[in-house]
Amino acid sequence: MRFHRVLLLVLATCFGASARAADVDLIVYGDYLLSMVPGEAVLEDAAIAIRGDSIVAVGARTDIDAEYSAPRSIPGADRVILPGLVNGHTHTSMTLFRGMVDDLDLMTWLQQYVFPMEGRFVTPEFVRTGSELACWEMIRGGTTTFVDMYFYPDEIAGVVQRCGLRAVIGAPHIDYPSPGFEGWDDSFAAARDFVGRWQGKDPRITPAFAPHAPYTVSPEHLQDTVAAARKAGAPITMHLAEAPAESAYVSEHFQTTPIKHVKGLGMFETPLIGAHMIQLDAEDIALVAAGPAPVGAVHNPTSNMKLGAGISPVPAMLAAGINVGLGTDGAASNNDLDLWEEIRLAALLHKVASGDPTALPAPEALAMATRTGAAAIGLGEYIGQLKPGMQADLIQVDLGKTRHQPRYDIVSHLVYVLDSTDVQTTVVAGQVLMRDRQVQTIDEAALRKAVAKAADGIRAALAAPAEG
Amino acid sequence: MRFHRVLLLVLATCFGASARAADVDLIVYGDYLLSMVPGEAVLEDAAIAIRGDSIVAVGARTDIDAEYSAPRSIPGADRVILPGLVNGHTHTSMTLFRGMVDDLDLMTWLQQYVFPMEGRFVTPEFVRTGSELACWEMIRGGTTTFVDMYFYPDEIAGVVQRCGLRAVIGAPHIDYPSPGFEGWDDSFAAARDFVGRWQGKDPRITPAFAPHAPYTVSPEHLQDTVAAARKAGAPITMHLAEAPAESAYVSEHFQTTPIKHVKGLGMFETPLIGAHMIQLDAEDIALVAAGPAPVGAVHNPTSNMKLGAGISPVPAMLAAGINVGLGTDGAASNNDLDLWEEIRLAALLHKVASGDPTALPAPEALAMATRTGAAAIGLGEYIGQLKPGMQADLIQVDLGKTRHQPRYDIVSHLVYVLDSTDVQTTVVAGQVLMRDRQVQTIDEAALRKAVAKAADGIRAALAAPAEG
Repeated sequence: MRFHRVLLLVLATCFGASARAADVDLIVYGDYLLSMVPGEAVLEDAAIAIRGDSIVAVGARTDIDAEYSAPRSIPGADRVILPGLVNGHTHTSMTLFRGMVDDLDLMTWLQQYVFPMEGRFVTPEFVRTGSELACWEMIRGGTTTFVDMYFYPDEIAGVVQRCGLRAVIGAPHIDYPSPGFEGWDDSFAAARDFVGRWQGKDPRITPAFAPHAPYTVSPEHLQDTVAAARKAGAPITMHLAEAPAESAYVSEHFQTTPIKHVKGLGMFETPLIGAHMIQLDAEDIALVAAGPAPVGAVHNPTSNMKLGAGISPVPAMLAAGINVGLGTDGAASNNDLDLWEEIRLAALLHKVASGDPTALPAPEALAMATRTGAAAIGLGEYIGQLKPGMQADLIQVDLGKTRHQPRYDIVSHLVYVLDSTDVQTTVVAGQVLMRDRQVQTIDEAALRKAVAKAADGIRAALAAPAEG
Repeated sequence: MRFHRVLLLVLATCFGASARAADVDLIVYGDYLLSMVPGEAVLEDAAIAIRGDSIVAVGARTDIDAEYSAPRSIPGADRVILPGLVNGHTHTSMTLFRGMVDDLDLMTWLQQYVFPMEGRFVTPEFVRTGSELACWEMIRGGTTTFVDMYFYPDEIAGVVQRCGLRAVIGAPHIDYPSPGFEGWDDSFAAARDFVGRWQGKDPRITPAFAPHAPYTVSPEHLQDTVAAARKAGAPITMHLAEAPAESAYVSEHFQTTPIKHVKGLGMFETPLIGAHMIQLDAEDIALVAAGPAPVGAVHNPTSNMKLGAGISPVPAMLAAGINVGLGTDGAASNNDLDLWEEIRLAALLHKVASGDPTALPAPEALAMATRTGAAAIGLGEYIGQLKPGMQADLIQVDLGKTRHQPRYDIVSHLVYVLDSTDVQTTVVAGQVLMRDRQVQTIDEAALRKAVAKAADGIRAALAAPAEG
């Protein structure tokens, strides 16, 4: 490869670079590039060549310039290129409930606010607006892939198609009435239809089954879900081992832990994305690691802390070889979709939880939002690392600001100092979704108008809760 | 007062507002104003009139406009006015060590990196540059007052005078050699001189004694400190009850807890600012609350989590009536001076620590960075609330951005969504230090040049640790 590059450079020098360079669609430059490929160090003065939706080459700027030419490029002074972030668990539409109520007991919050408000307000239009607002915020913050689980998933898929992000979209099914459904039968049928309708339709969209949780879906229905997922070749995503109340429910009804309960139903025999994964003992961790199918865990530190759900045993899961990603959960329990906060919080939380300041070091926390996070949601072959052949999902962040000075270590800065407003460029499947902080694919003014309209209704309902 | 306002309004309407309005120096407007005065709700369409260094009036925009005129004003569309934030514990100069090393065992971090680097690099020039960088970051992030504890405090005071911030500046004294000193005698003498030199000199600067910690200053020397502080009428600030290792040391040498140890030395009989305050049992908390002098506690969630020091019993301390503030600690263990992160982290951390999502609700977390934080550092009569007669230390933050939409509750947004880049205006003692995110009192280009020079030396030393 090295010889080949030198040869090309010689040829390019002799015959004129533009005549010899291979055509690509886009070259992105960066004073630094962090590929997140295991063992690869930060590359200085780097570039990445993109053709169509894929990465063609990653390397030194001089080598890339010698080998490739492109009609478009993005400059890289003071910028770091890294893989786009993966938000492994969210409910994008709930962004419209951002800060609706906080600091409440979980049951009060769910039963007096979230469920009644969902019953009253969640329509296809609500989902369209809420998801678009969430996508706008994620593009601005450098998230390129998310895993969603919410009502009217066709609307979410439509928003994803238009805005250019990548998503695993779970169609929800639950034993109780929910927006649009009377209960299990119609919600499960709709989920099967959704998966069938979207599978193979758009390379950026992976449809999934999303049974709500072990305490809201019966064992028989979870087994039906496994059968349907295996038949369709689609992943399952669900809330799993989240709050102590879930463990208590499973213990009372099934005399076991949530993990052993779902394992017994065959849920680890088909790809599964488990959101939260807090209430796990050592035996549970070993079972998850044993699969045999890939079972990813998605850690949501802000949500888990805000709801007082507990501290997930992330270092132990990683040590057992489980792929652990990061998620923001919905904005109703966060209250934003800023994955940088989750990265930093993960790095901090597991240090204080263990009393060990070497726990979950910065490179591992950053991997949870990129390489390991991509693997956790079943997309590790396509995204989460920058190398030839992978999807061109990447971001540029600016570390040139005065508040980033001085700087001794790039990864440390990304984890402990950077915030979402430092993201300059967001690219998914080779398409530039944000450039110089300008989102290219969403009409911000129209979005704000729709958000204001939806919020007015919610605000009125909050002011008159008796009607809620 | 209300009648008086109406009368003035009538007079102003009859005779022309400009002829009748009282002259002030500055009027700041805000679509919302959060005074942080107990019991006062968020005021909409508000303004605040400032004369000299003080607040003259806080009220509805129409009333303020009718009663006051000023040569300068700052507009308030989409903005919230609130008291400037109080950073109760930091080491500003250490900003030059930002991200130098992370994720290390505490003793390795201190003994192999921090102490040798301090011994090698900390000079008056280093302190000047590091403090100015920190002040720049704090002004940009809406911090208006900080409590410092570091070598060469005269340099820090000089930077504070020039940049316009307010500070409690602790002169460090310790039983061991430190930059500029051989040990206790000369460091304590220098601290006494510093306090004498700065007391009453500048209303924005409060000099303080800063014995390092119970494990680095002998009981006799702590008693000497108390005597000197009482004589001078100056506060003491120190690291107190931080890590388990400190408790173990105090237990081994004095057969008690750090709190009972310093209480027995008379340290609660003179105003004290205790940084960290983690290792406290119920008896310790009662002793701190009993004083009899005001003993404030400063909680540093990021630093405590990053160093794995433990979780401070903040809700219990607040319930006992102790004033608990917030601090960033130095950037070497944070890695920035963003107090908004500490506010959010405090609100999150104590929920998960207790398993109670109603613990430390948003208004309480915000008070820790304003009203309660000001009281914790002994300045509660002057700052931390917006009301007539208090110092004009305030900020404006922008909640108009799309990522702040929708918005149902201002305080929730300030705590769970806002970040430091949303701060638009920073005013201290009536002086505008930042306007539209432009810092007015620091030459950013010259600062960056000085920072780059200092960082080059540190970088070289890191690359050749054997010489360190």
